Amino acid sequence: MKFYLILTGFLIILMDPGITFCQQQAYPDAHAQNMRGISHQITHDTITFALLLYQGVVLEDFAGPMEVLSKAKNLTKGKYQLFTVGLNDNPIATENNFLTIRPDYSINAMPEADFLIIPGGSMPVINALLENQKLTDFLTKWCADPQNQTLSICTAAYLLANVGVLNGKRATTHFFVADDFAETYPGIELVKNVRFVDEGNLITSSGVTSGIDALLYLVGKFTGPDIQAMIGRALQYTFHEQEAWPVAPNGMRYSKNPR
Amino acid sequence: MKFYLILTGFLIILMDPGITFCQQQAYPDAHAQNMRGISHQITHDTITFALLLYQGVVLEDFAGPMEVLSKAKNLTKGKYQLFTVGLNDNPIATENNFLTIRPDYSINAMPEADFLIIPGGSMPVINALLENQKLTDFLTKWCADPQNQTLSICTAAYLLANVGVLNGKRATTHFFVADDFAETYPGIELVKNVRFVDEGNLITSSGVTSGIDALLYLVGKFTGPDIQAMIGRALQYTFHEQEAWPVAPNGMRYSKNPR
Repeated sequence: MKFYLILTGFLIILMDPGITFCQQQAYPDAHAQNMRGISHQITHDTITFALLLYQGVVLEDFAGPMEVLSKAKNLTKGKYQLFTVGLNDNPIATENNFLTIRPDYSINAMPEADFLIIPGGSMPVINALLENQKLTDFLTKWCADPQNQTLSICTAAYLLANVGVLNGKRATTHFFVADDFAETYPGIELVKNVRFVDEGNLITSSGVTSGIDALLYLVGKFTGPDIQAMIGRALQYTFHEQEAWPVAPNGMRYSKNPR
Repeated sequence: MKFYLILTGFLIILMDPGITFCQQQAYPDAHAQNMRGISHQITHDTITFALLLYQGVVLEDFAGPMEVLSKAKNLTKGKYQLFTVGLNDNPIATENNFLTIRPDYSINAMPEADFLIIPGGSMPVINALLENQKLTDFLTKWCADPQNQTLSICTAAYLLANVGVLNGKRATTHFFVADDFAETYPGIELVKNVRFVDEGNLITSSGVTSGIDALLYLVGKFTGPDIQAMIGRALQYTFHEQEAWPVAPNGMRYSKNPR
């Protein structure tokens, strides 16, 4: 019976073509049993993430979250799914044109999803998006469905704030723009010195790499601490919910209308 | 004279279309002077990075390094340049086909560069690349030029080790494969509990997010601590050279030929 259990564990590992290198090979028996135990714990439905891309998006705002979801997909037999969506079908150039990416869909033809992830960009890019009626209409409609969950990363908090859904709620953003954010949206309670804020179906993360913590948090919330810890180890990244935000020298801060 | 200096500082900031949101606006005078002072410190030549991409590459292995270089480009008036290079002209799919990227060049037509960055992948992907003669020939030729500098991230240390250039040197890799790496390449001195190892023109980094530290280290080495600290703040990422490596439960480790 023990042999049978171990063998089944090995087969589960060996048969999954998508599993990461951490689990890709058959290992000492303890590992196989461990993996089998973990995969049996996963009882939730598939969770589908739509990742919004736009011209000038900051690569690392979405790459860390995407990596967490790629590992989560591998470790849960596909319980995590992801596609990318652009404002139209055009290829997306990240900041400085460093990468050119073809989105899977445009927002006009977006398949169903449980989550929308909105990565940030430089403030001139964000300020232009705040004037983009197509994006505003899309976000307004998306957020109006109480089934839909939304995660903004870094400066993308402005895009969520702009459609009014954060009013009366707690939220966070990149430390450097935080005071401007609080002044621009006085109806939102800015939370400092955190990596992310969970307000149920609206989650906001702080600057750039904070997105990794937000996604590790979500995986922990949905699938549990074992898979969360495995992904943290796979990325050699230490999950943290709090941090003492950096302090820019000489009182530097972002201001749209500087004195 | 003071007014002129401040004005010049403002103009430097305002005229740069590529600068990040941290510097995109005119700020209180101290910031403008600060930025002008920093940009005057940068006396080194332009450093060009070639980033190697291949089918199944791990996104976060190269996204963090790319982000550091994007911010470094913005903050140094373009002293950091980057292009991507594939084994051929085909679009590159990252792990799980999450992103489809068109590389700027193939290795057959690669422009001159100072640095080659080689991101990692899952071990089955790396093991296949170890048998890829075109890649082996390319890396052998690249590393034979003493002017060329090379950075491997995560499991890509195997690709460098495979062409013999790490023999007699110190190197690191992803914690989970480290013991296998040391057994496979006994002529290389494996360094544990570090984020990266600098052996002059050969730098190896540990797992996934360690690549961010390796690039922050290089920017600090070439351009100095002010720009390094600004990029760390922009990414809300705390630079670190050392870490107590994660420990996988139940004695788990990677082994190509498990018992």
